[in-house]
Amino acid sequence: MGETVVRGGRIWRGPGQGLETADVLVRDGVIAEVGPGLDAADGAARIDVAGRIVLPGLVESHCHLDKTLYGGPWVPHSAGEPLAERIANDRDRRGELGIPDVDRITALLERMVASGTSYVRTHTDVDPEAGLRGVEAVRAAAERLEGRITVEQVAFPQHGVLVNPGTAELLEEALKGGVRTLGGIDPAGFDRDPVGQLDLLFELAARYGAGIDVHLHDGGTLGAFEFELIIERTEAAGLGGRVAISHGYALPQIDAAHRERLVERLAAAGVSLVTGAVYDFPVPPVKRLRAAGANVACGHDGIRDLWGPFGSGDMLERAMHLAYRSTFRRDEDIELALEAATFGGARLLGLPAYGIVPGAPADLVAVDAETPAAAVVTHPPRELVMTGGRVVVRDGEPVA
Amino acid sequence: MGETVVRGGRIWRGPGQGLETADVLVRDGVIAEVGPGLDAADGAARIDVAGRIVLPGLVESHCHLDKTLYGGPWVPHSAGEPLAERIANDRDRRGELGIPDVDRITALLERMVASGTSYVRTHTDVDPEAGLRGVEAVRAAAERLEGRITVEQVAFPQHGVLVNPGTAELLEEALKGGVRTLGGIDPAGFDRDPVGQLDLLFELAARYGAGIDVHLHDGGTLGAFEFELIIERTEAAGLGGRVAISHGYALPQIDAAHRERLVERLAAAGVSLVTGAVYDFPVPPVKRLRAAGANVACGHDGIRDLWGPFGSGDMLERAMHLAYRSTFRRDEDIELALEAATFGGARLLGLPAYGIVPGAPADLVAVDAETPAAAVVTHPPRELVMTGGRVVVRDGEPVA
Repeated sequence: MGETVVRGGRIWRGPGQGLETADVLVRDGVIAEVGPGLDAADGAARIDVAGRIVLPGLVESHCHLDKTLYGGPWVPHSAGEPLAERIANDRDRRGELGIPDVDRITALLERMVASGTSYVRTHTDVDPEAGLRGVEAVRAAAERLEGRITVEQVAFPQHGVLVNPGTAELLEEALKGGVRTLGGIDPAGFDRDPVGQLDLLFELAARYGAGIDVHLHDGGTLGAFEFELIIERTEAAGLGGRVAISHGYALPQIDAAHRERLVERLAAAGVSLVTGAVYDFPVPPVKRLRAAGANVACGHDGIRDLWGPFGSGDMLERAMHLAYRSTFRRDEDIELALEAATFGGARLLGLPAYGIVPGAPADLVAVDAETPAAAVVTHPPRELVMTGGRVVVRDGEPVA
Repeated sequence: MGETVVRGGRIWRGPGQGLETADVLVRDGVIAEVGPGLDAADGAARIDVAGRIVLPGLVESHCHLDKTLYGGPWVPHSAGEPLAERIANDRDRRGELGIPDVDRITALLERMVASGTSYVRTHTDVDPEAGLRGVEAVRAAAERLEGRITVEQVAFPQHGVLVNPGTAELLEEALKGGVRTLGGIDPAGFDRDPVGQLDLLFELAARYGAGIDVHLHDGGTLGAFEFELIIERTEAAGLGGRVAISHGYALPQIDAAHRERLVERLAAAGVSLVTGAVYDFPVPPVKRLRAAGANVACGHDGIRDLWGPFGSGDMLERAMHLAYRSTFRRDEDIELALEAATFGGARLLGLPAYGIVPGAPADLVAVDAETPAAAVVTHPPRELVMTGGRVVVRDGEPVA
């Protein structure tokens, strides 16, 4: 790839760190140097982003690529409100609509690339009905976009583990086939046996060296109890940094003293919280979690699928939703939402190097905004997007 | 102005009404005919919007133009969370930032025009400190945009009525000067005397033939009690259709049976509810209110001001927030949010004629979306905006 220098941007290194005007020297897809007055070897590319804010590549930490209808015709939502009805609707209409669809997944990934996302964690349905077709479809789409976006799949038992015989075997199959993270879903409320589901997941994770990311919608004290079960197992297995709870509606619902204890324990155990701030559902206490040292990441959840028609794939817009629902008004608070869509996601995914620093992959996004908080509020067009040193968006237009 | 024909659009007439492909014949700023195969007199303008959805001009039903910093440099939010601190911050920094600023207000109104808004209700601070400067500044900006957007001001006692001596006299002054709607604010929680503030407002309203629109953040049973006081006074004064409660956080907070009674009474009394679905604050039960026949309108609340940095001025985006926070997934539900941003606002403002129907002012917006719900979800660029028969946006670009 040779050398490229991205000149004159204002580099963002994380919340409260301010901005540093600097050039970024990229060599062979990796950031070689960051500082003033850098230049590249003769014949190298020079990209001027004078005055633009330069963010590290955005991280989508929770979505469902396999379910998406993105880029196809509008499909009016057809399910009722109860969860069971929405699950049945999803099952019934998948065949009719040809889901999972590699072209739809590709269209959404292209949209993500264009909006500056470099890394994606996606929860892919794995169950006796779908088998591993979702995993294969997502893999096929990700291969089409290779070098432009990195996709990590979670083998996700959407329809339960214990209540859906054959699912555990398929989860193991997925791990054997290269999937590196196991999903779970409401071990109590859905699977009816919290200890049973979690023991099964942690046992599999230990055997295959996998991480874990559990969908936890269960609310109040029941959900809080499951937080504790997950924390206990994470500590026992030494899986700190490899385990996450997605949604975690219970955390903002329980009383303040109980919440405070859980926040401290999440931080100590190295269990991340992943939120999308979706619809009207509870949003975790991002500021408190970060102050305690617990990791917070952010994602869309479903994007244009049988579960709901919303979602754009733009992680700056998603960070806006998180900041807005958190009633963050001050720049330093809004930056916490941006952190969840960047560094928080990178920690969730365990990326070995990340950020606008020497040695990290050259994943960066330049936007016209006065401050990082303003970039979240206005989520303006991406003027430049670079992934692994490759320019994928230039002057706001995708580069083929 | 002569004749213009807008051809081939798919006309939206309200929730659940479907779309009708038709031409719209505009004569002298008014819709003359709607139907298939229409043509204008020779030499008249023809605008092709084949396949686009045509909405009536959008209605912004609750904002604070006088406070805005829109179009100027980013001002990081500087207030703490408590209401008293935010009010003090607003007071302290207005002078420093030159608020109200006719240029800023004009910039925001231009943004609203470009996004298809034809009508605006704005709550303008009126108090002994600001006097009527806000009212004059908004009026000056509105005059600059005359013929492109219609602005209705509410004389708004942001800092209380009874607790802020001199305010009542200024509210009356505003009415004498042509303002047609009186605002109020938390008659109990802020002004400490709900009956006192409301009696004063309703007495003034009766004397000047004014309408009323009260900011009601007071929650739970206290706020619900104030709902009742407002409903009782509206009925006693025969002001049905001229009174609104903005925000009304109490309604979703009280128990279901109590809420049901209030919803029925709001409908019977002709009291509108205005919501922005802002931040994480409670959202009224839009679907239930509409089913009962109560009117619901929608607005941004503050846009880029000392109260918070969010808000774009785009009412399709705002309708998205309302639909999203309402957990509306089905097209017919999402259309209720669109109704609040169109017909609901028109009813709030008491517009004598509105919609894509003969006899209404030719205010219309064409967007590229498959369904009205999709227009809310994606809030795409406005391809054509016409206000009172004048083309203000064409091919997505503002027309000077």
